[in-house]
Amino acid sequence: RRGEMAKSTQLIDNEVFQAYATYTAIVLLKMMLMSLITAYFRITRKAFVNPEDTASFGKGESAKKFLRTDPDVERVRRGHLNDLENIVPFVGIGLLYALSGPELSTALLHFRIFVGARIFHTFAYLIPLPQPGRGLSWAVGYSVTFSMAYRVLKTVWLL
Amino acid sequence: RRGEMAKSTQLIDNEVFQAYATYTAIVLLKMMLMSLITAYFRITRKAFVNPEDTASFGKGESAKKFLRTDPDVERVRRGHLNDLENIVPFVGIGLLYALSGPELSTALLHFRIFVGARIFHTFAYLIPLPQPGRGLSWAVGYSVTFSMAYRVLKTVWLL
Amino acid sequence: RRGEMAKSTQLIDNEVFQAYATYTAIVLLKMMLMSLITAYFRITRKAFVNPEDTASFGKGESAKKFLRTDPDVERVRRGHLNDLENIVPFVGIGLLYALSGPELSTALLHFRIFVGARIFHTFAYLIPLPQPGRGLSWAVGYSVTFSMAYRVLKTVWLL
Repeated sequence: RRGEMAKSTQLIDNEVFQAYATYTAIVLLKMMLMSLITAYFRITRKAFVNPEDTASFGKGESAKKFLRTDPDVERVRRGHLNDLENIVPFVGIGLLYALSGPELSTALLHFRIFVGARIFHTFAYLIPLPQPGRGLSWAVGYSVTFSMAYRVLKTVWLL
Repeated sequence: RRGEMAKSTQLIDNEVFQAYATYTAIVLLKMMLMSLITAYFRITRKAFVNPEDTASFGKGESAKKFLRTDPDVERVRRGHLNDLENIVPFVGIGLLYALSGPELSTALLHFRIFVGARIFHTFAYLIPLPQPGRGLSWAVGYSVTFSMAYRVLKTVWLL
Repeated sequence: RRGEMAKSTQLIDNEVFQAYATYTAIVLLKMMLMSLITAYFRITRKAFVNPEDTASFGKGESAKKFLRTDPDVERVRRGHLNDLENIVPFVGIGLLYALSGPELSTALLHFRIFVGARIFHTFAYLIPLPQPGRGLSWAVGYSVTFSMAYRVLKTVWLL
């Protein structure tokens, strides 16, 4: 078992992999934060979707009025879904990219721009900022993932 | 090529990684099960969203009445989306965590609690159980992923 | 540091892992394409969901009429969500499968069928093709992921 432990330690000691792990953990925690923001808006706006969630507000008709959609809740949920659609490809392609042996400085550039763009995207969505702020931050993150995918395919291509 | 095969065998022979692989496969299969449950409710409740899916029920107006939403279908779909929002961070952060060299017993504790909480969450959503059953099981899974992210960031931090 | 770099190079030099990386990058890029198709339909159908996205079409009531749902936009979005629900398990379980030491030919068979089925699924959803075209392509991809999960659990089982 020693050999395997040593090897797994080695992978985590690779600097490009360390950078990947740091930025992936940060951007996944940022995505998880959307759940808390949704819960915050659901509770403060009293806007729920499951009947059992409104039981503490009373019984029958008095609780039913809290089963409704709220623009702020829906906005956070759209931001959360956009995160899923964009962060899932980053995590998957980024892992392959980190293992493809890029320069540390190039890898850091990719990871920093992606995570910065997604954090900006969240602010642009929730405040909201006027367009094209949100659109551009989405495009920047998208382009970074595309650039990493290009290097992965150039390095490993085996169809 | 022998060397690589041996190494990949080694990673899969690491006990923490074996535990990660087992629990990740189980919880992803559980998430995939939500698709089958959605299909089951769509068919038994005759509630579809794509016109081409109702063609076997007749033509024109007679099929159109099956293009509708059903509370049970929507409930399973919300459970499925909640799985995506929570299981994606677990799979990504859990991989980094498994590679960060934790004690096997500590890792097993994290994986078991997370997967147990998500299985309970599914039952709480689908039965449904009164709150705070579903909310607490969500919070337990969320906390486990957060705890793993904390260890990952403490171990690898390279910004 | 040299040792780690060598090891990470070795993993990416493993042929099964190369195949996994190639097909995973392709299928994640295919999923990312859904965002562009959604944007295309939102712009050509003038159907938006965020008020700030319609500001360039005029102010006040004149822009409000573009805050609407469009059947083509909703269809692409359903295809995108179906991708998330099915490609996330493929990426996660496929990684574990690739590390479990399968024969290259068996692994290629799994990856090719999955990615082919998901590309067909997208065409079947967007054209749309009559059922059971879309349903069958979904079932084929689902079965491939299930088959990989079975091998992973048989190989690593540590509960």
